[in-house]
Amino acid sequence: MKIVYLVLGPMDQKEVVRRAGLLKRWASPGVDVDIRGVSQGPGSIESQFEECLSIPAAAKEIFRLEKEGYHAAILGCIGDPGLYAMREITTGMVVIGPGETSLHIAAMLGHRFTVLSPVENAIASFYELAHRAGVTAKLASVRAINVAVLDLASNKAATLERIIHEGREAIQEDRADTLILGCMSMGFLDIAEEVQESLRIPVINPSKAALRMAETWVGSGLYHSKKAFPLPPKLTSGKIASLDELFV
Amino acid sequence: MKIVYLVLGPMDQKEVVRRAGLLKRWASPGVDVDIRGVSQGPGSIESQFEECLSIPAAAKEIFRLEKEGYHAAILGCIGDPGLYAMREITTGMVVIGPGETSLHIAAMLGHRFTVLSPVENAIASFYELAHRAGVTAKLASVRAINVAVLDLASNKAATLERIIHEGREAIQEDRADTLILGCMSMGFLDIAEEVQESLRIPVINPSKAALRMAETWVGSGLYHSKKAFPLPPKLTSGKIASLDELFV
Amino acid sequence: MKIVYLVLGPMDQKEVVRRAGLLKRWASPGVDVDIRGVSQGPGSIESQFEECLSIPAAAKEIFRLEKEGYHAAILGCIGDPGLYAMREITTGMVVIGPGETSLHIAAMLGHRFTVLSPVENAIASFYELAHRAGVTAKLASVRAINVAVLDLASNKAATLERIIHEGREAIQEDRADTLILGCMSMGFLDIAEEVQESLRIPVINPSKAALRMAETWVGSGLYHSKKAFPLPPKLTSGKIASLDELFV
Amino acid sequence: MKIVYLVLGPMDQKEVVRRAGLLKRWASPGVDVDIRGVSQGPGSIESQFEECLSIPAAAKEIFRLEKEGYHAAILGCIGDPGLYAMREITTGMVVIGPGETSLHIAAMLGHRFTVLSPVENAIASFYELAHRAGVTAKLASVRAINVAVLDLASNKAATLERIIHEGREAIQEDRADTLILGCMSMGFLDIAEEVQESLRIPVINPSKAALRMAETWVGSGLYHSKKAFPLPPKLTSGKIASLDELFV
Amino acid sequence: MKIVYLVLGPMDQKEVVRRAGLLKRWASPGVDVDIRGVSQGPGSIESQFEECLSIPAAAKEIFRLEKEGYHAAILGCIGDPGLYAMREITTGMVVIGPGETSLHIAAMLGHRFTVLSPVENAIASFYELAHRAGVTAKLASVRAINVAVLDLASNKAATLERIIHEGREAIQEDRADTLILGCMSMGFLDIAEEVQESLRIPVINPSKAALRMAETWVGSGLYHSKKAFPLPPKLTSGKIASLDELFV
Amino acid sequence: MKIVYLVLGPMDQKEVVRRAGLLKRWASPGVDVDIRGVSQGPGSIESQFEECLSIPAAAKEIFRLEKEGYHAAILGCIGDPGLYAMREITTGMVVIGPGETSLHIAAMLGHRFTVLSPVENAIASFYELAHRAGVTAKLASVRAINVAVLDLASNKAATLERIIHEGREAIQEDRADTLILGCMSMGFLDIAEEVQESLRIPVINPSKAALRMAETWVGSGLYHSKKAFPLPPKLTSGKIASLDELFV
Repeated sequence: MKIVYLVLGPMDQKEVVRRAGLLKRWASPGVDVDIRGVSQGPGSIESQFEECLSIPAAAKEIFRLEKEGYHAAILGCIGDPGLYAMREITTGMVVIGPGETSLHIAAMLGHRFTVLSPVENAIASFYELAHRAGVTAKLASVRAINVAVLDLASNKAATLERIIHEGREAIQEDRADTLILGCMSMGFLDIAEEVQESLRIPVINPSKAALRMAETWVGSGLYHSKKAFPLPPKLTSGKIASLDELFV
Repeated sequence: MKIVYLVLGPMDQKEVVRRAGLLKRWASPGVDVDIRGVSQGPGSIESQFEECLSIPAAAKEIFRLEKEGYHAAILGCIGDPGLYAMREITTGMVVIGPGETSLHIAAMLGHRFTVLSPVENAIASFYELAHRAGVTAKLASVRAINVAVLDLASNKAATLERIIHEGREAIQEDRADTLILGCMSMGFLDIAEEVQESLRIPVINPSKAALRMAETWVGSGLYHSKKAFPLPPKLTSGKIASLDELFV
Repeated sequence: MKIVYLVLGPMDQKEVVRRAGLLKRWASPGVDVDIRGVSQGPGSIESQFEECLSIPAAAKEIFRLEKEGYHAAILGCIGDPGLYAMREITTGMVVIGPGETSLHIAAMLGHRFTVLSPVENAIASFYELAHRAGVTAKLASVRAINVAVLDLASNKAATLERIIHEGREAIQEDRADTLILGCMSMGFLDIAEEVQESLRIPVINPSKAALRMAETWVGSGLYHSKKAFPLPPKLTSGKIASLDELFV
Repeated sequence: MKIVYLVLGPMDQKEVVRRAGLLKRWASPGVDVDIRGVSQGPGSIESQFEECLSIPAAAKEIFRLEKEGYHAAILGCIGDPGLYAMREITTGMVVIGPGETSLHIAAMLGHRFTVLSPVENAIASFYELAHRAGVTAKLASVRAINVAVLDLASNKAATLERIIHEGREAIQEDRADTLILGCMSMGFLDIAEEVQESLRIPVINPSKAALRMAETWVGSGLYHSKKAFPLPPKLTSGKIASLDELFV
Repeated sequence: MKIVYLVLGPMDQKEVVRRAGLLKRWASPGVDVDIRGVSQGPGSIESQFEECLSIPAAAKEIFRLEKEGYHAAILGCIGDPGLYAMREITTGMVVIGPGETSLHIAAMLGHRFTVLSPVENAIASFYELAHRAGVTAKLASVRAINVAVLDLASNKAATLERIIHEGREAIQEDRADTLILGCMSMGFLDIAEEVQESLRIPVINPSKAALRMAETWVGSGLYHSKKAFPLPPKLTSGKIASLDELFV
Repeated sequence: MKIVYLVLGPMDQKEVVRRAGLLKRWASPGVDVDIRGVSQGPGSIESQFEECLSIPAAAKEIFRLEKEGYHAAILGCIGDPGLYAMREITTGMVVIGPGETSLHIAAMLGHRFTVLSPVENAIASFYELAHRAGVTAKLASVRAINVAVLDLASNKAATLERIIHEGREAIQEDRADTLILGCMSMGFLDIAEEVQESLRIPVINPSKAALRMAETWVGSGLYHSKKAFPLPPKLTSGKIASLDELFV
C-alpha cells in the first residue's frame, strides 16, 4: 500500500525529512508512506483565506499523485482545505482530510470532545468543519491555546504546557472527555501520548490518525463515493481535455 | 452608495454589458452599481473544484475593490466561493454571498423552500450551504433542471420550461412553497416573475436579491462581524506587509 | 413604494411623530413611510399574554392598510405577534416581522449572535422566535438588560450603559460576535451605532432593519408565499363575506 | 379534583351537552369535569388567524375559572392557541394544551407519528407546534383529510373513512407507527378505538388524552413552571391592579 | 385497573413494603397497584453495565406479569433498562419507563429542565435517554448530587440538602425552570413537594409520575405501537414455541 | 497486535472456522486475529430483546479476554449490544462496535448513506444507533431486504440479488450515495466488492471495517475515554471485589 502526505505550503527541508521519518515510524508494516510538497502556498494556514490560497496548487499535485499510483493522499492541514474538490478530481485514489478523520474518531472515543486550536482565528472554522462532518452533537467546545502555528515547535515545552492547561479547562468547564490536537504541526510534535498521560483522557494526533484511517479505507477496499463527489461535468462531457482547461 | 458585482471568471463582453444593464435597472434610486471581472478563472462554476479555482484571483480583486471605495461587493456565484475568506481580508466593505442571501430570504417567505440547481453536481453544495447558513429546517429539497450553466441562456424558452417543470414537481412532491433559482446565470435570465406567475409561489432571483440585500446592509449601517471574520493573524501581527506575502 | 409602520398599542402622539421622523430619515430615496396606530391595545408588550392581546385589533388594521394601497406593513413589536395570521389575511401587501428579520440578518453577519431583551420575561419568547425562524444554530444567547419597556427612553444614558454592559458580557461569556437590540423601543432610541462603536461588533436596530428589509422584498418583487400562509378556508369557500364574520 | 374544558367559540348547546357527557364518561373515578364556553369567538379554528382571534376572550375566561377553584383547564383547540399566555396569567390552575399533550404521548408510544389535520391550512401550524414541543425528531408527517371542521360530524361515516384512508397512507408512505387525530372535533367523534382496530397502530384522541394528562399533572402535584411562564411584569410590579388594565 | 411496579434487583423486604405503601397512596381511586421483584439482579443500578445485567431476568418477569392480567407494568429504574425489548415481548400490557415519562412531562412543564443524577456515572446515560426520547431541545443539564444510590435513604436530610443545593445551581447557572429527580430511590424518598417548595419550580418524582402516566395510557385505551416494537421474528414465524428458546 | 472477534451466540463450528479464516485474510500484516464465542446466547439477533439477552454472557467474556492480553475486541453484532457497558468494565482493551464504526465511516465516504437491514424489525434500532453515534444528518434511510439472519447464507445468490435490488432503490428513491451492509452475517458473505461493482457506490462490510478500525485505534495509541465510560462505582469504591458480585 502506497500513501502520500501532502504539505500544503513551503516548508524547511529538514522539517520535511523529520515529518517523513515520523510518518514512516507510525505506519503499519507493509505500508509505504511518502511526503510531498507544493512549490508555492501559504507559510502556514491560520485563516480561511490562507486555506483558500492553498487549494489550487494542492489540487494539481493531488491530480499528479494519483497518476503516480498512490492509493491514498493525506491533506497536510486539519482544516481539510478543498477536501471535496480534491475528491471530485480523483477517480481511484483516496483523499483523506485529517480534520474530518479526527472529528469522527473523537465522536467514537467518548461522548463530548474538545478541539484545541492554535489561534482564536480558526475556532469558527472548526465549528463549520464539525457541521459538515455531522458530529456537532458530540462537540463540547473549541478552544485556542494562543500560540501561532509557526511558533508551536520553537518552544515545545511551552506549547505542551499550554495544551495541557487548556485541555484541563476543557475537562473541567466544558465536560470534555476526549481531545483533538487541532493542527498538523501539533500532531508532528508527537506529544499526544504525553498529554494523554497527564490528562487521562484520549488525545487524538491528527497526523497519525489520518495515516491510520487512510490504511483502514484502502485496506477495506473503500473509496469515497463518486456519486457524492462527481467529476466536474466539463470533464465528464468531454468538453475539455485536461484539468488545466477548467481555468481559462 | 456604491456597489460592485464581481464576475468570477472570463465572460463575453457583450454579456457583461447586458448584466450591468440589468443590475442598474434593479438598483434603488441613488445606488450606483458597477460590474467587474477577474482576468482569469473557470469558464463557469459547476463543481466544488471550480469554486476553489475561482477564489484566489477573486480575493485579490475584492481587496482592490475595497480600496476603490465600494461600500459593498457581490460575489458572482451562488455557491458563495470563499465568502468567509473574502470577509476576513476586508475591513469596511460589505461582501455579499448570493447563496447565503437567497437562503435566508427564502426562509422568511414561507415554511419550505426548494433550490433549483442547473446540474446534479451542485446539489450536495447547496445542502452544505444551507447547513452553513443554518436554515436546513426549512429546506424542502434541492433539484437539478439538468441544463449546463453555459447552455442556460442559449435556449431561454427551454430553460424556462425546465424550471417551471421542476418547480411544479417541488411543489407537489416536496411540498415546497418557495423557490430559489440556484444560479446567477438563471438570475440574469430575468425570468423570476414569469415563473412566479406560472407557479403562484415566490421565486427568488439571486442576482436581484443579492443587490437588494447589499443595499439593506449598507443602508442600515451594518457590516459583517470582524470578530467572526478576523484579519489573518500574520496581517494583524505585522509579520507581513501585504496580502501577497501570505502566499510564498 | 409605500410602507407603513404599525404601532400595536396606544402611544403618546409626540412619540409617534418622533418615530415617524426617524423612519423617514432611515428610508431609501423614493420610499414613502407612514406610521399608524391601533386605537386600543397593551401599553407595552412584555409578555406573551400582551402579545396575544394586541393581535385582533392589529389584524383589522393590517387588513384596512392593504386596501389603502401600502406595499408593505411592519409590525411594531419585535415579538412579531400574529405575524403568520396577518400574512394569512393579506393578498398582496408584504407583512414584515422585525423579530424574524433581525434574526436572519444576524445569522448572516456572523457566527453567533445574542439578543438583548428589556426584561427577563421575554427571554423564552426569543428562543421560540428563533426556533420558528430556524436560526437556533447561530443563537449564542438571549440576555435581559432588566429595564422595563416603558422606562427605556426615560433615562437613555442609563439604558445605553446597560446595553453596553450586557453586550460585553455576551461577547466574553457567550462568545457572541453580533448583537440584536431586542425591542422596537430600543431601536427608536437610535443608538445602535454608538453601541457598535463601543463594542466593535455589529449591532442590529430592529426598527431600521425591518424598514430596509421591507424595501428589499418589495423592490425585488417578492411576496410571502400564499401556499405557506393561505387565506382562512371560510374566506376562500365564500361561506362568509368579510373578515369580521370569522368572529361570531 | 375539578377539571374544566373550555370551548373557544360559540357552539350549539346540544353539542356542548353531548361533549360534556363524553368527558364525564372518560374521566377517572373521583374527577369532576365541567365544560364551559366563551360568549364570542370563531365558529371553528382552521387558520392561525382564527387561533389568534380566540385568545383574548378565552384568556379572560381562564382567569375567571382559576378563581372558581378548578385544578386544571383544558383549551378546546388542538392548536393550543395562547397556551403560554394562559399559563402566564394563572398562579395555581394547570392549563393543558391538547396539542402539546398529544404530541408528547405520541412520542412515547412509538418511533414515528403522523398527525391527521382536517384541512391543508393547519399543516404548517402542526409543524410549528411540534417544534415548540421539541418532538420533531419523531414526527413522520402531517396529512390533511380535507374535511372542514364544521363538516366532520355531519357525515361521521365519511369522516371515519377519510381518516382510515389517510392513516393507511401514513403507515405505508411515511412509515408512521402512531396516529394523532388532529382536531378536538375529531376527538369528540369518539372513534379512536375504531380507527385503532382498523389500522392496528395506536390512535390518540386529543380530547381524552388532554383530560387524562390533566389528571396526571394534578394527581402528581405538578404545576407548570412559573419561572418558564411568569406573570406579566406590570402585574408583578403592581403598576396595574387587574388583568383588564393591560389592555388600554 | 391493575398496575404492577417491578423492582429490578434484590431489595430488603421492609423497603419493598414501604414502597408498595407509597404507590397505593399515590394511585387514583379504583386503581390497584402491586409491587413485584426479581429474584436476582444488581444491588443498585449505577452504570450501564448494571442496567444490562438487570434486563434478562426482568424481561422474564414482565412476560409472566402480562399473563397474570396486569394492564401496565412500570420498570423500577429511571434508566429504563431494556424498555424497548420489554415492549417487543408483550402484546397487550403497557410497559412504562419512568425515565421516558419524566423527560416528556418535564418538556411540557417548562422550557428548560435539569435532571439530578445520584452519581457522575449516570450523566451520559441521561443524555442518551433524552436523545432517544427526542427531547434534547429542552434539556438544560444533567447534574450529579454525588450520593451513591444505596446511601440516598440512610441520611435523608443530607440527601435533601444536596438535591436543593444542586437544584439551585441548575436554576442559576443552567437557567433550568423544571427539575427531575433522577433515580427511583429519590422518588421513593417522597420529597418532591419539599424541594418544590424550597426552589419554587416544578420537581418531578419519577416514581409517582410513572404510575400516573400508566393510568393515563390505560385509561385512554392506548397501547404502545406493535409496529414500533414488534414481536421478535422467531416468535412470529413460529420457529420457536416460547420466549426461553430464544436463548440457546 | 492481538485482536479478538466475539461471536455473541452459539454458532456452528465450521462457520466459526470459516469466519476466522476471513478475518485472518482481512487483517493487516503483523496483526493476530482470533475468534471466540460465548457458550450461550441467542441463535441470531433480530430484535432488541435478543440484543439484551446476549449482553451478560458477552460481558463476562469481554472481561476475561482483556485479562488474556488482547488489545482490542470486536462485538459480533452490528447492533453493538451493550457496547458502552463493555467499555465500562474494561481498563485497557479497546471494545469496537461494528455498528458505530460503519456509521462513522459511511458519514466520511459520502453525503447520504443507507443501511440495509436483514429484517424490518431492526430498522428502528438502526435509527437509534445513528442517533447515539450522532450521524443522523447523513442517514438517508434504513431499508430491509427481508431475509431472516439465519437464511442469509443458505442462498447466497438470492441474498446478493436482494441486496443489489434494495441498494438500487436506495440510490434512486432516497438519493443514497453510500451503503452499509447491516448485519455481521452479511459481512461474512464477503460480497461487498460485488455489490460495489454492481451499484458503483461504496459498500461497507461491517465485519472488515470493524477489524480495520480496531487496528487504527490500537495503532494510533487510542483508547476510549474512561471519563466517558467509567468503571461502575461499586468497583471503584472497593465495595465489591469482582464483577460477579454486581449481580446478587
